Amino acid sequence: MEDDITSEEDPIRGRPKEIPHNEKLLSLKYESLDYDNIENQLFLEEERRMSHMGFRCLEISRWVICGLIGILTGLIACFIDIMVEKLAGCKYQVIKENIEKFTEVGGLSISLILWAVLNCAFVLVGGVMVAFFEPIAAGSGIPQIKCYLNGVKIPRVVRLKTLVVKVFGVICSVAGGLAVGKEGPMIHSGAVVAAGVSQGRSTSLKRDLKVRKNKQNEYEGASFWNQMLTWRIFFASMISTFTLNFFLSIYHGKPGDLSNPGLINFGRFESDSVAYYYYEIPLFMCMGALGGLLGALFNALNYWLTIFRIRYVHRPCLQVMEALLVAAVTAAVSFTMIYFSNDCQPLGPEHNEEYPLQLFCADGEYNSMATAFFNTPERSVRSLFHNQPGSYNPLTLGLFTLTYFFLACWTYGLAVSAGVFIPSLLIGAAWGRLCGILLASFTPTSPVGIWADPGKYALIGAAAQLGGIVRMTLSLTVIMVEATGNVTYGLPIMLVLMIAKIVGDYFEEGLYDIHIKLQSVPFLHWEAPATSHWLTAREVMSSPVTCFNRIEKVGTIVDVLSNTSTNHNGFPVVVQVLDSDEPAKLCGLILRSQLIVLLKHKVFVELARSRLSQRKLQLKDFRDAYPRFPPIQSIHVSQDERECMMDLTEFMNPTPYTVPQDTSLPRVFKLFRALGLRHLVVADDVNRVIGLVTRKDLARYHLGKHGLEELQLAQT
Amino acid sequence: MEDDITSEEDPIRGRPKEIPHNEKLLSLKYESLDYDNIENQLFLEEERRMSHMGFRCLEISRWVICGLIGILTGLIACFIDIMVEKLAGCKYQVIKENIEKFTEVGGLSISLILWAVLNCAFVLVGGVMVAFFEPIAAGSGIPQIKCYLNGVKIPRVVRLKTLVVKVFGVICSVAGGLAVGKEGPMIHSGAVVAAGVSQGRSTSLKRDLKVRKNKQNEYEGASFWNQMLTWRIFFASMISTFTLNFFLSIYHGKPGDLSNPGLINFGRFESDSVAYYYYEIPLFMCMGALGGLLGALFNALNYWLTIFRIRYVHRPCLQVMEALLVAAVTAAVSFTMIYFSNDCQPLGPEHNEEYPLQLFCADGEYNSMATAFFNTPERSVRSLFHNQPGSYNPLTLGLFTLTYFFLACWTYGLAVSAGVFIPSLLIGAAWGRLCGILLASFTPTSPVGIWADPGKYALIGAAAQLGGIVRMTLSLTVIMVEATGNVTYGLPIMLVLMIAKIVGDYFEEGLYDIHIKLQSVPFLHWEAPATSHWLTAREVMSSPVTCFNRIEKVGTIVDVLSNTSTNHNGFPVVVQVLDSDEPAKLCGLILRSQLIVLLKHKVFVELARSRLSQRKLQLKDFRDAYPRFPPIQSIHVSQDERECMMDLTEFMNPTPYTVPQDTSLPRVFKLFRALGLRHLVVADDVNRVIGLVTRKDLARYHLGKHGLEELQLAQT
Repeated sequence: MEDDITSEEDPIRGRPKEIPHNEKLLSLKYESLDYDNIENQLFLEEERRMSHMGFRCLEISRWVICGLIGILTGLIACFIDIMVEKLAGCKYQVIKENIEKFTEVGGLSISLILWAVLNCAFVLVGGVMVAFFEPIAAGSGIPQIKCYLNGVKIPRVVRLKTLVVKVFGVICSVAGGLAVGKEGPMIHSGAVVAAGVSQGRSTSLKRDLKVRKNKQNEYEGASFWNQMLTWRIFFASMISTFTLNFFLSIYHGKPGDLSNPGLINFGRFESDSVAYYYYEIPLFMCMGALGGLLGALFNALNYWLTIFRIRYVHRPCLQVMEALLVAAVTAAVSFTMIYFSNDCQPLGPEHNEEYPLQLFCADGEYNSMATAFFNTPERSVRSLFHNQPGSYNPLTLGLFTLTYFFLACWTYGLAVSAGVFIPSLLIGAAWGRLCGILLASFTPTSPVGIWADPGKYALIGAAAQLGGIVRMTLSLTVIMVEATGNVTYGLPIMLVLMIAKIVGDYFEEGLYDIHIKLQSVPFLHWEAPATSHWLTAREVMSSPVTCFNRIEKVGTIVDVLSNTSTNHNGFPVVVQVLDSDEPAKLCGLILRSQLIVLLKHKVFVELARSRLSQRKLQLKDFRDAYPRFPPIQSIHVSQDERECMMDLTEFMNPTPYTVPQDTSLPRVFKLFRALGLRHLVVADDVNRVIGLVTRKDLARYHLGKHGLEELQLAQT
Repeated sequence: MEDDITSEEDPIRGRPKEIPHNEKLLSLKYESLDYDNIENQLFLEEERRMSHMGFRCLEISRWVICGLIGILTGLIACFIDIMVEKLAGCKYQVIKENIEKFTEVGGLSISLILWAVLNCAFVLVGGVMVAFFEPIAAGSGIPQIKCYLNGVKIPRVVRLKTLVVKVFGVICSVAGGLAVGKEGPMIHSGAVVAAGVSQGRSTSLKRDLKVRKNKQNEYEGASFWNQMLTWRIFFASMISTFTLNFFLSIYHGKPGDLSNPGLINFGRFESDSVAYYYYEIPLFMCMGALGGLLGALFNALNYWLTIFRIRYVHRPCLQVMEALLVAAVTAAVSFTMIYFSNDCQPLGPEHNEEYPLQLFCADGEYNSMATAFFNTPERSVRSLFHNQPGSYNPLTLGLFTLTYFFLACWTYGLAVSAGVFIPSLLIGAAWGRLCGILLASFTPTSPVGIWADPGKYALIGAAAQLGGIVRMTLSLTVIMVEATGNVTYGLPIMLVLMIAKIVGDYFEEGLYDIHIKLQSVPFLHWEAPATSHWLTAREVMSSPVTCFNRIEKVGTIVDVLSNTSTNHNGFPVVVQVLDSDEPAKLCGLILRSQLIVLLKHKVFVELARSRLSQRKLQLKDFRDAYPRFPPIQSIHVSQDERECMMDLTEFMNPTPYTVPQDTSLPRVFKLFRALGLRHLVVADDVNRVIGLVTRKDLARYHLGKHGLEELQLAQT
């Protein structure tokens, strides 16, 4: 359950104060994950020994691991779900009773204080855990996972400690009444479980981890793909869904009923004979554009807020205090809105309000504003989708949209574990329903039944708002269709998501991309910038490169590895033809991690001669060291040993991918991205090493408003 | 609308008689498509001239093309759908009236003859078109499209003529009452439209064509992927679905109702409170295994039948006669089954039989066997899914499964345009429903309502049978969920498909893979065979390689291109350092197609000197020549011109991807596959060309029952 730190504990603990607050920087602290198979002699020998049966067993073990991941992920999701429901249920019950008590006798301010105190108590626990113990567990975790899937090694993002803080943190924030969802953190948890389980087994499985996620199937994140992997992912998702439904069905007292289609479930949209008419499509498109605009506004506000937080709110105690403040304000605003609302609705015989608040309404009626505010956000979304037409009056919806928009925007980025999915849906569902009601009132002459369902517009609005904020299309369509259980709306939802993305992208980037940029992560997009064909590998590469000879002095290796100013992770290996003045030719590539294992096991030429009976180093020794290699400082090399020689031939990758120096940036990019490389050697026409291309060299170039821009590199 | 033949018209017209009937062969007649961008000087100059605005326009034009593709595909699908419905409707109406007439007076053999003659008439038209005009339009077209997406150039598969024959052919075969579906041919039609529209525009779009398909979204086929492409595909699918629904809604007299979720629509499974219980899952899994077994049997029978056809039924007139025989037998068998069936069901007030046949049943009853046989296969599937429990008796279903299984197996591979999707679903739905009925009768003590719905088992059986025959999982899950409009069954359907695939793969390959293999197509799988790490590029590559000098004599080029025995398509370009005995170094790669354009435009060094004012050759000249380059024989080069020189520097790809000769097969494979290469140069450590790896070199190795096997290369 550990991140695969190569050698040193990362000196920067990820506290927000160290995040550079300039999106024109590219941080050097992030390293690449390495998906290229090191086909050295050890590996080939092992493959040769392996029978046909062996490959079959490996294949089966991969499926077993996927099953295990699925089960664990399902259990965690189930745990979060039940805990949130229990805790929030208790809280709302207590407050409801208190409000009912004081509505008659007066003194509702005591109820307000009780509400605020309860919220703050939950948020305090969650905030302290995140701010003091594991800052990387803050937020939804999706930006981090997106980077990880992109091939960037984010320190500590897939550790067990992160998982624990994330799980309990998200329970506290949702139960604490913040404007947050639990879906993002669940995806992060799934990724941690997947990384842990697969790394706990064997390095050969490590590439599986890239794409192992929770059910949400974030297609758009993953970069390296193959068919078997896709199947295993779907298998894992299936097992996970099954586990979740199995335990939830037991919890809900209906064991064996597996018809619950998933975790996010907004209730089925039962299709009537006619779901929507084609002349509604322009309306949906307008709503998509509105979603894009509002999303861009949300993102811009959150961007400025994040900059402010990086500058002024970087101490853990300040972060906890801000979280407490938000919790109290959320409670106060909710209470005020409910208190001053006079939207009373009759409490029908089949009402599905969990905690109907009567407050100042007549008997047999309930306060409609309270269904939106006095509820977990997920339940509020469900009631906006499915409550009967007329359950909300337009003013209620308008005020709710306004306040919740700002609350959610303020909340995202707090030092609590919290997702932005459900709040976005809630904002969108509120103004979408408002649109539906207004449309119906403006067109009284239209045939009855067409505009009659504001729930449909709530669904479209929710999709538009979510699309405008996070800017995904395919994965969100799948999620929304799954969550509503109705394929019929797939087409308009996809259309709305695309429009929201196009409109939103015109003004501001997606929320996750903003946060990735603010952390200066060397993120590689799908393709090189369009106008970069005139850049060649020669201009892009890092040069000069530290190379090792095929038989190298131990002292030289230790010195290079100990040099903290360079901190390279991959070294080309060259061979010098004896008694010749020809230049040294590239013959392989070796990683820092491999060198450290070699040093640790003292695989020196001289020792090998003296101890012929010594066990030969095997691939297993490298695997056992994964994913945590000791830092070079911890390996003691005596002065005598420094004079020894090390033969790298067996251990290096003998056929690293190379490109000539005239190769254009898009070609280099394509190779790098398609093969999941970490180091790409640039060689001249006699096979001399003249440079090395790494992730940061490629991520440096991006298409800005005025053409190609180059980011600066920073050590932080 | 033309296939991108490079130079010669392929001499082999794809008639089955020329298909080698040995799956241990690899045909040399198929060439690779080339997805690698040729970044020569012309290209770079064009890119440099192109403004930021230019890229934007290019991007927009791509979206427009996708929209156009979507609309055309939708129109074609709509046309096929309506034509089939009209023609089949007329046919069944005529026969029904005839049967009703002769049931009372006797002489039903006249009805049988009428039925057989009508079927034969339709099939005659379809069969003659396919067998005599365009043999490649036979079958479902999915194997061909799968190869095309894999990067193999299948002659004539995306031509306009193929499209026309395919569309009218499939209408004839479905209306002719054969046990066929129209979905495979529709996918093929979509691919032709996509290829035609995008190639009609510009070469820069050609990679789009790989993955443009009909709505069925056959994920598993495509190999090269990126995010924008995915979006454009979904956009095209969306437009296509919209177009289809729009016109179908007008046709059905309900304009504006877009709630029809797609083309294949088996009616919604309305979920009750409980869709399925977890103890049903083992039952589903058993059904999956049964589907796998039956699928393997189907494939094995079809394999032997195909071998027989290749040997003995290779003349077009024989093929048409076989098709007519099948049509007559289908009618006869159907009639006999209906005639001898005594499964009479009451004709309820809300029956949804299109053509209820009373035959010998009492008044107010209809013959249940006729709902299965006297109907288009798609309607039969729908009635098996949704008819009330008790609509079929077990004997009817058993007999139907048996006869339809053999009919469908005999039909697939006939010289008619016909898919296997719907027949597979129909067979599976029949035995699935049978399972459901038997389960309910064996467990009379179980609570009512659980086993009561045989439609659910029909759905699972259909999935199992289809999975067992075609062996796809992800795409089929999506299709089945879309077609039934219910997400709840996604999980069991996926499980069943996986089990069917695993069980089926144990015995026999998938139907499409069998047909691909029988055509000896050099198909590349996702990964190199697991045990091939000990093979290196040195052993795999073709060698020696015909190279050209950077400045080459025209005569030499013409001679090499005219040599029919080699017929190479890519040539490394080397440079010899003047006055040195150093070996010639690789400096580029040039394609046959480029050389032909250069020869056609007489881009000779001598002429350039004499005619300085001559217009320089531009990238446009190469694009205009695409996709049909004239054969080398048609280019006249005089004896004087043969002595001229050609400077290839500007036109060659100056940075081809290379690998060292020790690179293992899996590494070569990965590079080749990830980048969509056509030629991969193998170079030694001083950059000398020592070999060339092409598709056939990689496809040659495959994992058989006894480890790694090598296929033989054949000219046919």
